[in-house]
Amino acid sequence: MRALLTGATGFVGQNLKTYLQDRGWQLGTIGRKDSSKDMDEKMQSFKPDVVIHLATLFKAEHQTEDIPDLIQSNITFGTQVLESMVRHNILNFINTGTLWQYYEGQKDVPSCLYAATKTAFESILRFYSSANQMKVINLMLADTYGPKDPRKKLLPKLLSIAGTEKKLQLSEGQQVIAWTFIGDVVEAFEVAAQRLILDQEAKRFVSYTVTSTEELSLRESVRLCEQVLGKKIWVDFGTKPYRKREVMGPERLDPQLPGWTAKVSLAQGIEACRHG
Amino acid sequence: MRALLTGATGFVGQNLKTYLQDRGWQLGTIGRKDSSKDMDEKMQSFKPDVVIHLATLFKAEHQTEDIPDLIQSNITFGTQVLESMVRHNILNFINTGTLWQYYEGQKDVPSCLYAATKTAFESILRFYSSANQMKVINLMLADTYGPKDPRKKLLPKLLSIAGTEKKLQLSEGQQVIAWTFIGDVVEAFEVAAQRLILDQEAKRFVSYTVTSTEELSLRESVRLCEQVLGKKIWVDFGTKPYRKREVMGPERLDPQLPGWTAKVSLAQGIEACRHG
Repeated sequence: MRALLTGATGFVGQNLKTYLQDRGWQLGTIGRKDSSKDMDEKMQSFKPDVVIHLATLFKAEHQTEDIPDLIQSNITFGTQVLESMVRHNILNFINTGTLWQYYEGQKDVPSCLYAATKTAFESILRFYSSANQMKVINLMLADTYGPKDPRKKLLPKLLSIAGTEKKLQLSEGQQVIAWTFIGDVVEAFEVAAQRLILDQEAKRFVSYTVTSTEELSLRESVRLCEQVLGKKIWVDFGTKPYRKREVMGPERLDPQLPGWTAKVSLAQGIEACRHG
Repeated sequence: MRALLTGATGFVGQNLKTYLQDRGWQLGTIGRKDSSKDMDEKMQSFKPDVVIHLATLFKAEHQTEDIPDLIQSNITFGTQVLESMVRHNILNFINTGTLWQYYEGQKDVPSCLYAATKTAFESILRFYSSANQMKVINLMLADTYGPKDPRKKLLPKLLSIAGTEKKLQLSEGQQVIAWTFIGDVVEAFEVAAQRLILDQEAKRFVSYTVTSTEELSLRESVRLCEQVLGKKIWVDFGTKPYRKREVMGPERLDPQLPGWTAKVSLAQGIEACRHG
């Protein structure tokens, strides 16, 4: 089976690429810098069974000058991909969303402008799926992690300071996180791709949650890290304020992706990161 | 009272400008070509009580190359206006939507990419209204018309060929239209602006329908034109196909704007256009 990936150089993208290749998939990639013509050529020559759209620009809190890039990366680029797909009758699309789109459990209230651009893109997706028989699965992700994560996220920081004298300044740490291991995440994308290709999806546009069911507060997560690594981690909780509109827990407003469940516990995942 | 308008050079914008000026409003305008800095200066010096966002790029059926402009005009520009507003604590916003966002009566299915960008922008609006105490009234318009309409719409065409030998090629003409006279439309914007300024709106984000309750099929509309003008209009119905995803009737899924009702019948409106 053939998949065309956007965002293939990101953390999820690189892992998905390796995973799918190992499972015998043929892969192509397109990037934000490809012209419409480049995209058209790839659609025509590669003829993917499914397009997996991972490309995103993430800003937890935006600055005014981020607006054009946020919209270009998270709305315009995806629209151009969809347009190129329908011109070549390629009609299976997997989109990547975030639980941050559901602030305080409200389906239409994004927690930040980044999340708003994700919800905005869903309107574009609904147009293409309705007007062009396109089938869309929208995977709603929460916190992903795994070995060699280049993103400046909490877990890599904890791992890097474990056993050292360095102290990390954090918020109160009561936010609850559904840590989802990258190995589980990439499986979800394959499961979703197969659902589309094997025509197992009744709806034209459907959103599914892709998160671990294990939930730990940020404080508990730090303690677990210490246990697994057998090293002290110095953290000053409460020395930083929560973000404006901090997301305090995973809002699973969509059903879990059928045929998939997260298998890796945070303890196992930390162990994997340590050796990765 | 002070209103800042976007899209002030368009048909609705020009009429609204004249109307509000006559009613004693102080007006400012901003355009797509204004930089963030220009906008900031205007927000700071003019201090509008309300921003009325009319600017839009309309494409009934888009071409691939229209995508960046559609998104820039209908999403990015508005986002930059909102951003500038919150920086200056200006928190009353009137947005302009279209019933085309509700294809076949479905609230989340846009009829065309233009309508999809309008729905996409609503997600951005919901973020700003939730995160920044901004109050938003979203006015959902259908077909507007009036004297000196420079847009290439049906009524100006009918008026221009009435009494001549010219023949207009049209579709079957069964689509039902809620023709709304420009004089009524501009009143709706003032009513909405007052609701925001006088703090009569309980919700932070609300959509209202702004349409005439008079409904005529396109065929009936042509006949009425002939009657009012007392001139023959040659039309070949059925010689053109309907548009892909033609909107066959007004989908009034939101309540009518409270305190407003359309007063001008299509017969009166045509009369006004003839003399305008």
